Amino acid sequence: MTTIAIINGPNLNLLGTRETHHYGTDTLERINDGLNNAFKDRARLLFFQSNHEGAIVDHLQNLKNSAGIVINPGAFTHTSVAIRDALLALNLPAVEVHLSNIFRREEFRKHSFISDIVIGVISGLGPRGYHFAVSALLDIAKQPT
Amino acid sequence: MTTIAIINGPNLNLLGTRETHHYGTDTLERINDGLNNAFKDRARLLFFQSNHEGAIVDHLQNLKNSAGIVINPGAFTHTSVAIRDALLALNLPAVEVHLSNIFRREEFRKHSFISDIVIGVISGLGPRGYHFAVSALLDIAKQPT
Amino acid sequence: MTTIAIINGPNLNLLGTRETHHYGTDTLERINDGLNNAFKDRARLLFFQSNHEGAIVDHLQNLKNSAGIVINPGAFTHTSVAIRDALLALNLPAVEVHLSNIFRREEFRKHSFISDIVIGVISGLGPRGYHFAVSALLDIAKQPT
Amino acid sequence: MTTIAIINGPNLNLLGTRETHHYGTDTLERINDGLNNAFKDRARLLFFQSNHEGAIVDHLQNLKNSAGIVINPGAFTHTSVAIRDALLALNLPAVEVHLSNIFRREEFRKHSFISDIVIGVISGLGPRGYHFAVSALLDIAKQPT
Amino acid sequence: MTTIAIINGPNLNLLGTRETHHYGTDTLERINDGLNNAFKDRARLLFFQSNHEGAIVDHLQNLKNSAGIVINPGAFTHTSVAIRDALLALNLPAVEVHLSNIFRREEFRKHSFISDIVIGVISGLGPRGYHFAVSALLDIAKQPT
Amino acid sequence: MTTIAIINGPNLNLLGTRETHHYGTDTLERINDGLNNAFKDRARLLFFQSNHEGAIVDHLQNLKNSAGIVINPGAFTHTSVAIRDALLALNLPAVEVHLSNIFRREEFRKHSFISDIVIGVISGLGPRGYHFAVSALLDIAKQPT
Amino acid sequence: MTTIAIINGPNLNLLGTRETHHYGTDTLERINDGLNNAFKDRARLLFFQSNHEGAIVDHLQNLKNSAGIVINPGAFTHTSVAIRDALLALNLPAVEVHLSNIFRREEFRKHSFISDIVIGVISGLGPRGYHFAVSALLDIAKQPT
Amino acid sequence: MTTIAIINGPNLNLLGTRETHHYGTDTLERINDGLNNAFKDRARLLFFQSNHEGAIVDHLQNLKNSAGIVINPGAFTHTSVAIRDALLALNLPAVEVHLSNIFRREEFRKHSFISDIVIGVISGLGPRGYHFAVSALLDIAKQPT
Amino acid sequence: MTTIAIINGPNLNLLGTRETHHYGTDTLERINDGLNNAFKDRARLLFFQSNHEGAIVDHLQNLKNSAGIVINPGAFTHTSVAIRDALLALNLPAVEVHLSNIFRREEFRKHSFISDIVIGVISGLGPRGYHFAVSALLDIAKQPT
Amino acid sequence: MTTIAIINGPNLNLLGTRETHHYGTDTLERINDGLNNAFKDRARLLFFQSNHEGAIVDHLQNLKNSAGIVINPGAFTHTSVAIRDALLALNLPAVEVHLSNIFRREEFRKHSFISDIVIGVISGLGPRGYHFAVSALLDIAKQPT
Amino acid sequence: MTTIAIINGPNLNLLGTRETHHYGTDTLERINDGLNNAFKDRARLLFFQSNHEGAIVDHLQNLKNSAGIVINPGAFTHTSVAIRDALLALNLPAVEVHLSNIFRREEFRKHSFISDIVIGVISGLGPRGYHFAVSALLDIAKQPT
Amino acid sequence: MTTIAIINGPNLNLLGTRETHHYGTDTLERINDGLNNAFKDRARLLFFQSNHEGAIVDHLQNLKNSAGIVINPGAFTHTSVAIRDALLALNLPAVEVHLSNIFRREEFRKHSFISDIVIGVISGLGPRGYHFAVSALLDIAKQPT
Repeated sequence: MTTIAIINGPNLNLLGTRETHHYGTDTLERINDGLNNAFKDRARLLFFQSNHEGAIVDHLQNLKNSAGIVINPGAFTHTSVAIRDALLALNLPAVEVHLSNIFRREEFRKHSFISDIVIGVISGLGPRGYHFAVSALLDIAKQPT
Repeated sequence: MTTIAIINGPNLNLLGTRETHHYGTDTLERINDGLNNAFKDRARLLFFQSNHEGAIVDHLQNLKNSAGIVINPGAFTHTSVAIRDALLALNLPAVEVHLSNIFRREEFRKHSFISDIVIGVISGLGPRGYHFAVSALLDIAKQPT
Repeated sequence: MTTIAIINGPNLNLLGTRETHHYGTDTLERINDGLNNAFKDRARLLFFQSNHEGAIVDHLQNLKNSAGIVINPGAFTHTSVAIRDALLALNLPAVEVHLSNIFRREEFRKHSFISDIVIGVISGLGPRGYHFAVSALLDIAKQPT
Repeated sequence: MTTIAIINGPNLNLLGTRETHHYGTDTLERINDGLNNAFKDRARLLFFQSNHEGAIVDHLQNLKNSAGIVINPGAFTHTSVAIRDALLALNLPAVEVHLSNIFRREEFRKHSFISDIVIGVISGLGPRGYHFAVSALLDIAKQPT
Repeated sequence: MTTIAIINGPNLNLLGTRETHHYGTDTLERINDGLNNAFKDRARLLFFQSNHEGAIVDHLQNLKNSAGIVINPGAFTHTSVAIRDALLALNLPAVEVHLSNIFRREEFRKHSFISDIVIGVISGLGPRGYHFAVSALLDIAKQPT
Repeated sequence: MTTIAIINGPNLNLLGTRETHHYGTDTLERINDGLNNAFKDRARLLFFQSNHEGAIVDHLQNLKNSAGIVINPGAFTHTSVAIRDALLALNLPAVEVHLSNIFRREEFRKHSFISDIVIGVISGLGPRGYHFAVSALLDIAKQPT
Repeated sequence: MTTIAIINGPNLNLLGTRETHHYGTDTLERINDGLNNAFKDRARLLFFQSNHEGAIVDHLQNLKNSAGIVINPGAFTHTSVAIRDALLALNLPAVEVHLSNIFRREEFRKHSFISDIVIGVISGLGPRGYHFAVSALLDIAKQPT
Repeated sequence: MTTIAIINGPNLNLLGTRETHHYGTDTLERINDGLNNAFKDRARLLFFQSNHEGAIVDHLQNLKNSAGIVINPGAFTHTSVAIRDALLALNLPAVEVHLSNIFRREEFRKHSFISDIVIGVISGLGPRGYHFAVSALLDIAKQPT
Repeated sequence: MTTIAIINGPNLNLLGTRETHHYGTDTLERINDGLNNAFKDRARLLFFQSNHEGAIVDHLQNLKNSAGIVINPGAFTHTSVAIRDALLALNLPAVEVHLSNIFRREEFRKHSFISDIVIGVISGLGPRGYHFAVSALLDIAKQPT
Repeated sequence: MTTIAIINGPNLNLLGTRETHHYGTDTLERINDGLNNAFKDRARLLFFQSNHEGAIVDHLQNLKNSAGIVINPGAFTHTSVAIRDALLALNLPAVEVHLSNIFRREEFRKHSFISDIVIGVISGLGPRGYHFAVSALLDIAKQPT
Repeated sequence: MTTIAIINGPNLNLLGTRETHHYGTDTLERINDGLNNAFKDRARLLFFQSNHEGAIVDHLQNLKNSAGIVINPGAFTHTSVAIRDALLALNLPAVEVHLSNIFRREEFRKHSFISDIVIGVISGLGPRGYHFAVSALLDIAKQPT
Repeated sequence: MTTIAIINGPNLNLLGTRETHHYGTDTLERINDGLNNAFKDRARLLFFQSNHEGAIVDHLQNLKNSAGIVINPGAFTHTSVAIRDALLALNLPAVEVHLSNIFRREEFRKHSFISDIVIGVISGLGPRGYHFAVSALLDIAKQPT
């Protein structure tokens, strides 16, 4: 069965309580359950969240057997070259997801260190974004190269 | 039945033949047919494409009865304040879609005149992007405000 | 009798309903009626509105017999070199008018492609701006060069 | 009777002799007389001119009983945060006036420290600009809030 | 016989009367006649001028059977991504021509949205520029790839 | 008793030996003892120092019961959006402290990713800065909202 | 007895009434009384406020016998090189104080012409900032150089 | 006898004691005496120094009978548009003098608001700069226009 | 007979072997022969190539009797003010030619130190560019001023 | 025996498999063995690699007894002020090494947060860079200060 | 007898004929004769002019026995780091002279690569500038260090 | 035997006397002797130094038979596109060497016109840099392509 890795960056463990006008009221656990339910027949989902950039890099280095990566790097979107480099080294199809629309917020949130090396970006559609990203990666995994 | 307007900007009528490494081999007609098939039970889809900025503005002014807007402004993404203003005047939930990942291309394609006023942005996921956008807007339309 | 051309750009046909906190509740028709009433003894006013940049350029090319131009290019203020060039070719006294104060809004609205080639700029004074502009142009038309 | 304060910044006491290609041949006294004539039935006009930024700030602090402010800060337009702060503290409707069109001149004259906190801006229409500004402020003063 | 398309952008229909110190006294008709005379034995020239960006995009989409494109986008040089995209989709050899030397004029005229995707640029040589461009394209059309 | 959290970022564990011309000769332990002495009757002080951005984020997520935050993010001041986001999620009054005056040093130290979301900033007053920050937060904690 | 000079720039004489969401409801007189009370045994405080940049420069030139300077230059923070130069000439320990947090406000308020030449900066802590600044300067005055 | 006005800006009254590594040990009085001695047979020198921008503007407005202006605006060099405008209104030959070499100091001292409207600039040559400037202006005054 | 000077800058003596994807396979000698053949009845062509900026300046100073200048400054296009000044001093009609299209290459090649002082620019048309330039200059030389 | 610390940043543990066109096919282990072989008679080499910025800072704080530091911060080169500060605190001779030439890659890789505080930089010479760096540090360690 | 070297850069050999509105009608020979006459009793003047940057560097390397350098680098002012480095190596008092006022001309002429390493700058005073520079250097040469 | 060309730019002939805090006390001759000694069995070293950009370009054009280039362009690093172009035309492996660490000096020294086209860069390691560069080039020359 296809494995898709789903990675969430710093402070996303606070979902459901943190700045709910930006991020909504769902907890990360609930979002992950929703994903498992939706894709249980089509994919094995591998969840990971960390507030530590280094831990995300460590984790990415061990995902060689996945078919694709869904990543919401949170704050690291705007500051981490190390995660970019880990994604470049991994060389798998990846989709960048943001719950809130990063283009409506502070100026510095408009720049992403990974958007030019992923397949696509989904921003502002809430937890649906993860669903769309997994769905797109499963499609792509089925296509012959 | 809910109406969702789907608007494509300049040169998107060439899909299927134009720079296929960026935009894929599906024609716009085929993409629209796919959308109609997928959503025929849930929404009436109103398609529009034009190479004329003014025609898109005219069209947007007449969409007050739609539940949401899916818009791929193509080249106008980066140059049209008029379309931004028409969307602001319309004041409906909108999702910005790009077939190719605009963050992997020329520097000037990284700036969008509408991404800070739409609900969300989907970039680089090909025709799936339209499906995801319609799906998100139908969800949102169901929610009480 | 002196002719003054009054040109309004994209989305100004929506006045009265569009973002009323910025633009007020008067319709364009009502504004134009107000102008006709105020200046009926002193000038023939020639009204034009379009959402199409090209149509505004076409129109400007036919105004050689006017004594002056009042132009609110709306969104095209910030994006149209073609309108600038049409004004340069026309070489008549022109006044740039904005209903809302463009200096209080998005950063990109602070740059105008025509403010350095018109006689003057009126911004933020609502429909009065058109009255002041016509009045100024009639004064100037009376002066020997 | 409504009081409107009319404030002119540095070097505007030289009007009529100073760079007449930019500023015209009317003296400030003559302009003020023209304003008094035009509005004698509708408003008490309170004139002030100074070459000292501090004096203008002192003066602004004493205008709490005015209905509105017409201000041509001259050179201070581009350099004075203190005048901006005095206007913010005063919190009255204000109109910024420039005799010459500041958008046709040196690059640094395009930035104003007050245009984003006033109601509106009139630039390039000569002494008429003061008349239009007073007229607009009297209108606004009549409107119920 | 080889077809070369010759496209002129906004306000170029005014040639001969518009800012003659920049653009000279020849009308566009006369320039086109001169081109027809010069190349009548070697090429079929297809002329098009419009003040509408969308019309130029429409027209470009229909030029697949031409051997090359001579384009003077006028004001659209500096503002139109849509024309750039139409040229990219067309994928024919193109030469950008400007009658006046765009490097001697306003700062914003120094940036072209197409100069990095055409074969070459000719600026400032007047109507001769069109002749040189057609001549170069005919040469190139003769070369085996 | 009121709890105030005091957080120090990377390399601040080296105080007393590190670049003493910038940071003085007091060790962090000694500074903390001084704070405990000064505020023992008014507050419980919760000290934390780490060289790991992720550890500071983890720690901040657990401070919901504090009355305020004193934070000297050290190098992370200039690079960490994750700490900014953790502070935003925490939503408590915070004061940013720097031992040295960051405005006298390298250009990049002049930008802080948190100074626009804290109550206030104290820079350059040495260990006193922590005392002043705690004192201010205790004052604020006493005020009814 | 040690003298500490306390200098306030333009519009700070309006404290208590001016933009109270930024500056609070204490008058400057009341703040100064508070300072006198707090430090009456330790220092002679020399108060000065002016809306005139030149007057502040004049005043600074006469403070050679003070032990330190507390300065809130208000709007002059962002525009006055003359005050910077007067401080450089005076060569006494100085602390820059702002009542509101200047990093939360307009972009131009983030640059200070004196923060790189003073000992330290306190921003956003209200009238407490002056107390902390005097306290720090008295400490420093006691230290042997 | 020819009159040359010599104007010194803020803090230049402190010469001889202020930052002597930049400005030397001569007092302004001594410099002025030196100038009087050197030019007593050729010119009447009119000295003026002020820490007030407005006072310098007032003074400049009264110099119409001078043959030339030597001006060291000190800190106002970098911040005063009002002095620029007063010089433009005066329209006399002027030379800008700086005792220290402003190009060796802080970045912001490299920009002068008057250097593009004076005849010439002398920077870094100490009090000699005034002598050279007077000498140049006397030469120029002798030349027929 | 009319003389046209043809000047080539550094590394253009390597044509035919150097980066042939940019510059083609013709040697400079062969290009010059082609020009001599084409214009032998209409002009005397004076060829010069140097890798030394100073030598090109020396050469330009001796061309006062030419009717026009064709110059491909190569790398000096982007770095030499001295060649600009020599052209300004010479004050003859000049055309700037580049074999490759400088707008398709490194960013720094987009700026030319001479394009705003020549009559026109031809870029990217290969050796034809020299022919077009000579042809244009001969035309211009025939026109009465 | 002299100790030299050799520190590698994030993703360098992947050497040999990661983007081999940039980083070559040697593993980090093999590179380290090569260094041990080469310098076994002259130095004790202390190897450290981590994907965690904080771990590198912790490690650097414990290297006071080394004679020098060879550091390839990988992605942290461009983002870590904390490592810069740890190096500043350590105050030992350090050499920055990059396997690939960082000046040939993405724009953001051209800026290093440590190159201005190390002795020297070696970029693009592959694993040899470490050898050269150790060799240089051993030389320097032998020199009397 | 004291030697002062006087160096002129490219195109200054054309003085008297070149752009006389900028540079006046004196030839360089005549300017040099004037200097020899004026200083014949006080200094040996060593004149040098070249259009070659390298020749100026060679020449500067041989001036160790001079007491000072007067240098008008002409166009090299804005482009030559090599001349800057030669001056730094020479380490003699130098004065930068420009005949025209470089602050009144093209933007790029406002930056000098040597003004921050010379004693002073004289710009816009014509040939007098050389006289003033020699005079200043002779004064300085007399002063004990 | 393999030939390696070693090229030094302007003012490097002064080594040993010039700014010894930056460049050390070795003369260029002594550095070259050291290189000859170190590599006499492995390579023929071809030394060249010039203060003339053009002479370096001429020299580079004649190095086709070398196996590699060691180049310290000195000041030309930051200003010469011509040397870049000569290296591009030569198309041989090259290493850029700087004796001092260019990243610790003036801002403009941080940009090199060749670092993105050479194999690698060594900065700040003194004369050892040349040794390392030759050594790396000999290694590379041995590798089969």
